[in-house]
Amino acid sequence: MPVSFTLAELARHVGAEVVDGDRNRPITGVASLSEAGPDDLSFLGNPKYASEVAASRAGVILVPRAFTGVPSDGQVFLRVDSPSYALALLCSVIESSLWPRPAPGVHPSAVVSPLAHVAAGAHVGPHCLIDAGARVGDGAVLEASVHVGRDASVGAGSWIKSGVRIGEYCQVGARCRLQPGVVIGSEGFGYEVVGDEVRRIPQVGTVVLEDDVEVGANSTLDRARFSRTVVGRGTKIDNLVQIAHNVRIGAQCMIAAQVGIAGSTVIGDRCVFGGQSGVGGHLTLGDRVRVGAQAGVLEDLPSDSFVNGTPALPLGLERRIVVLSRRLPDLFKKVDSLAAALDSLRKDAR
Amino acid sequence: MPVSFTLAELARHVGAEVVDGDRNRPITGVASLSEAGPDDLSFLGNPKYASEVAASRAGVILVPRAFTGVPSDGQVFLRVDSPSYALALLCSVIESSLWPRPAPGVHPSAVVSPLAHVAAGAHVGPHCLIDAGARVGDGAVLEASVHVGRDASVGAGSWIKSGVRIGEYCQVGARCRLQPGVVIGSEGFGYEVVGDEVRRIPQVGTVVLEDDVEVGANSTLDRARFSRTVVGRGTKIDNLVQIAHNVRIGAQCMIAAQVGIAGSTVIGDRCVFGGQSGVGGHLTLGDRVRVGAQAGVLEDLPSDSFVNGTPALPLGLERRIVVLSRRLPDLFKKVDSLAAALDSLRKDAR
Amino acid sequence: MPVSFTLAELARHVGAEVVDGDRNRPITGVASLSEAGPDDLSFLGNPKYASEVAASRAGVILVPRAFTGVPSDGQVFLRVDSPSYALALLCSVIESSLWPRPAPGVHPSAVVSPLAHVAAGAHVGPHCLIDAGARVGDGAVLEASVHVGRDASVGAGSWIKSGVRIGEYCQVGARCRLQPGVVIGSEGFGYEVVGDEVRRIPQVGTVVLEDDVEVGANSTLDRARFSRTVVGRGTKIDNLVQIAHNVRIGAQCMIAAQVGIAGSTVIGDRCVFGGQSGVGGHLTLGDRVRVGAQAGVLEDLPSDSFVNGTPALPLGLERRIVVLSRRLPDLFKKVDSLAAALDSLRKDAR
Repeated sequence: MPVSFTLAELARHVGAEVVDGDRNRPITGVASLSEAGPDDLSFLGNPKYASEVAASRAGVILVPRAFTGVPSDGQVFLRVDSPSYALALLCSVIESSLWPRPAPGVHPSAVVSPLAHVAAGAHVGPHCLIDAGARVGDGAVLEASVHVGRDASVGAGSWIKSGVRIGEYCQVGARCRLQPGVVIGSEGFGYEVVGDEVRRIPQVGTVVLEDDVEVGANSTLDRARFSRTVVGRGTKIDNLVQIAHNVRIGAQCMIAAQVGIAGSTVIGDRCVFGGQSGVGGHLTLGDRVRVGAQAGVLEDLPSDSFVNGTPALPLGLERRIVVLSRRLPDLFKKVDSLAAALDSLRKDAR
Repeated sequence: MPVSFTLAELARHVGAEVVDGDRNRPITGVASLSEAGPDDLSFLGNPKYASEVAASRAGVILVPRAFTGVPSDGQVFLRVDSPSYALALLCSVIESSLWPRPAPGVHPSAVVSPLAHVAAGAHVGPHCLIDAGARVGDGAVLEASVHVGRDASVGAGSWIKSGVRIGEYCQVGARCRLQPGVVIGSEGFGYEVVGDEVRRIPQVGTVVLEDDVEVGANSTLDRARFSRTVVGRGTKIDNLVQIAHNVRIGAQCMIAAQVGIAGSTVIGDRCVFGGQSGVGGHLTLGDRVRVGAQAGVLEDLPSDSFVNGTPALPLGLERRIVVLSRRLPDLFKKVDSLAAALDSLRKDAR
Repeated sequence: MPVSFTLAELARHVGAEVVDGDRNRPITGVASLSEAGPDDLSFLGNPKYASEVAASRAGVILVPRAFTGVPSDGQVFLRVDSPSYALALLCSVIESSLWPRPAPGVHPSAVVSPLAHVAAGAHVGPHCLIDAGARVGDGAVLEASVHVGRDASVGAGSWIKSGVRIGEYCQVGARCRLQPGVVIGSEGFGYEVVGDEVRRIPQVGTVVLEDDVEVGANSTLDRARFSRTVVGRGTKIDNLVQIAHNVRIGAQCMIAAQVGIAGSTVIGDRCVFGGQSGVGGHLTLGDRVRVGAQAGVLEDLPSDSFVNGTPALPLGLERRIVVLSRRLPDLFKKVDSLAAALDSLRKDAR
């Protein structure tokens, strides 16, 4: 992270009015309290780590205004309303500096169909391929080796990382971010068994990512059998996630890594899926549904459900079953001793 | 989906002799009964949705010949033997129109070794790389950024999507379809711990995909330690699936998304694997084995097994255990009350 | 596998002093005892397969010095101290022959920034992209379509397969091997919900792979929110694995396919993770921890733990619970009959 900030710059970026201590050398990194060195900035984001501040070697620490500690020798405290928010502000500054938006233009090694529509303000990097009829919006960035298929589109301001494939006729909205290796518009897994043959069912639909959708590295989103696979506005998808054909996901959902959603399932808004969880096909999930990590959903779920386990159950019940399962050895013993006691009672009764 | 069909064209494509209603405007899309609009074709594929036909706004609906409903105003019914089959026929026509097979030839940005053998009828798209000794069969399509390694081969009529890597010496059969990002012939995960070192075991075998195999986006198939990793004729593999080194999969299997098959396992014909399931290494599974979603197979399985759960059990037993697990809270209570009752009985007996 | 060895070459490569039998035709393949044909070499690596030697059609078999069998007609035994080690020696020879290290130089279709530092002894293959400030060490191989981002580095002797993306500012150590499609430095999955918005948290850290790390096909390693995501020296990662932001993995770990490690988790040295297992975020695992396949770790684990199941438990307890779960049908019946017996006893007692 080749960054460098003077104390004055830092204070300005994070909006700190109270600077506790003094410092001449620049800050060149950001690290946690325990890992930071004298040239790093750190932060007290969670009160439970307050005791770590005294031992931290960080050159500058973002602390809450009311924090009672004092900086050690050569250390500076920047007192702010919210250290977490202040850090986010600073990281945005760092990001703009480390990842400047590339200049508009098409790299000479890119292959752009004369029938494609690339906005003048778009950046098309090395070894990209833009097919006939495809559209790339203003301010969009296609880093390198990105393939935008025939009649597909990328909305204004979207940032498409290296090696992403956007299949024919698919639509990526505005301000989307696709990490490297994402596949949009692979063919859905549709086959029918006819006698001895497994026959392919043509998949002629598309994928639509609404605005502000983000998709993690190497995730795959299949095109619909017909009609559209849809990811709603603002939904965030992590790495190595599988979204099958004809799935419809609502707005502002959070889908963690390695989740799989099977075909034709419909999901509401603001749902959250833990890592490695799966949802069966042709199901309907309401809004604000939460699914635990590694859970397997096999039934429709009403809004505000919170489920866990495979097959997934309401969280409370699932937790009780898990706890009771751990007591199975005791239960088996107890039942055995009950049986013995009953036996001896019966003998006595004879 | 930029398609457009007149009513007469539709009737011809789906083989409908009975047209119920009239229409001048073309049909430009395909959608489900509930989502279709006046310019869409829809279909009644499953009798349980019959009640949705009356409310559907679809311009044209494929219905069974004997369906008793009548089209609403401005709507047309195409009466056919099997609406699902009729739709598949139509989708094949749409697919041929939307995905015409690219013309033969090698794009100037592709890098093709003078020692490679590319059939005159093959299509090699932008930024592809065909190494020395590699063979690409007649009618094969390599879309873009496809890498065919040294002495590897792609059979006639296969369609290889963007960004696929076919490793050195590996063989892809005829009429295969590989979705974007597939990796064929990555090195198997083979190491041995020698003292303090984790040492790599060279992986010098290959991968063989027999004819008519299809592989989903970003799936990975490792080359054998020696000899061959094999996927049998007609087997279909979904997205993000892992096939480890020396695995041998039979013919006509269906492997859903995110499945993992560990090393050296041998699988028969016509097996079906649910999403996110896993199979341990060095196992043997017979023919027509079915493995439920998220299941974990840790033992050999005879033909016609149907297993579920982790560790996987025969479906009937697994279902009973799941149902009984949900009754654990009651069981614990019942055992407690039995113990209490027994206690009081013993006191009485004294 | 286009290899060819005379008997004398084989004996030399594997260090066999005792050759039992004679042979003129070359050996052109390696296969298991049951699959080998007359032109293949095979080996008796595990005494339990000794009975397969007599039936094997292999032309040459590596056997332990003390093995009592005799070669069949036209077959040759090479007697060695350890057939497995001898085979590894031979496979290394085969590997050097089938995968010669490509000659140094930059392919004309590669795009290399004038501000990048590519060692004279490095190989940069077709359609690669090396951004400004990036460093590629001596003897490193970048096969094809590899993207090394701005200020990123690849250490000496590393072998980077086709389609790998090494993100900006990330560091890959010496002698690393990255299989096709690996993504190093995708943005971590960091968001905060602010009112109705899901807001992205900038991810400005990096990823560091220490020396001798190997990563399997299409695996993804996210850059840190700030600071570094670290994979320790000699650790081996299989295909389709997800390593989230700020994870720190120690040295010499083995991480099987489709594993997921959630954000900020810290893992010690020499840990082993079974396929499809998952580890929650912000956890600490000691050294030599073993996690079973498909397990889900939700708590810190001390060194030398061996856990299994979801949520993961110590192996012994987990095994007992699995076994007892299978006896639940019997337990329910037993409790019912106990209740009936108790009932009748109470009636008698009245």
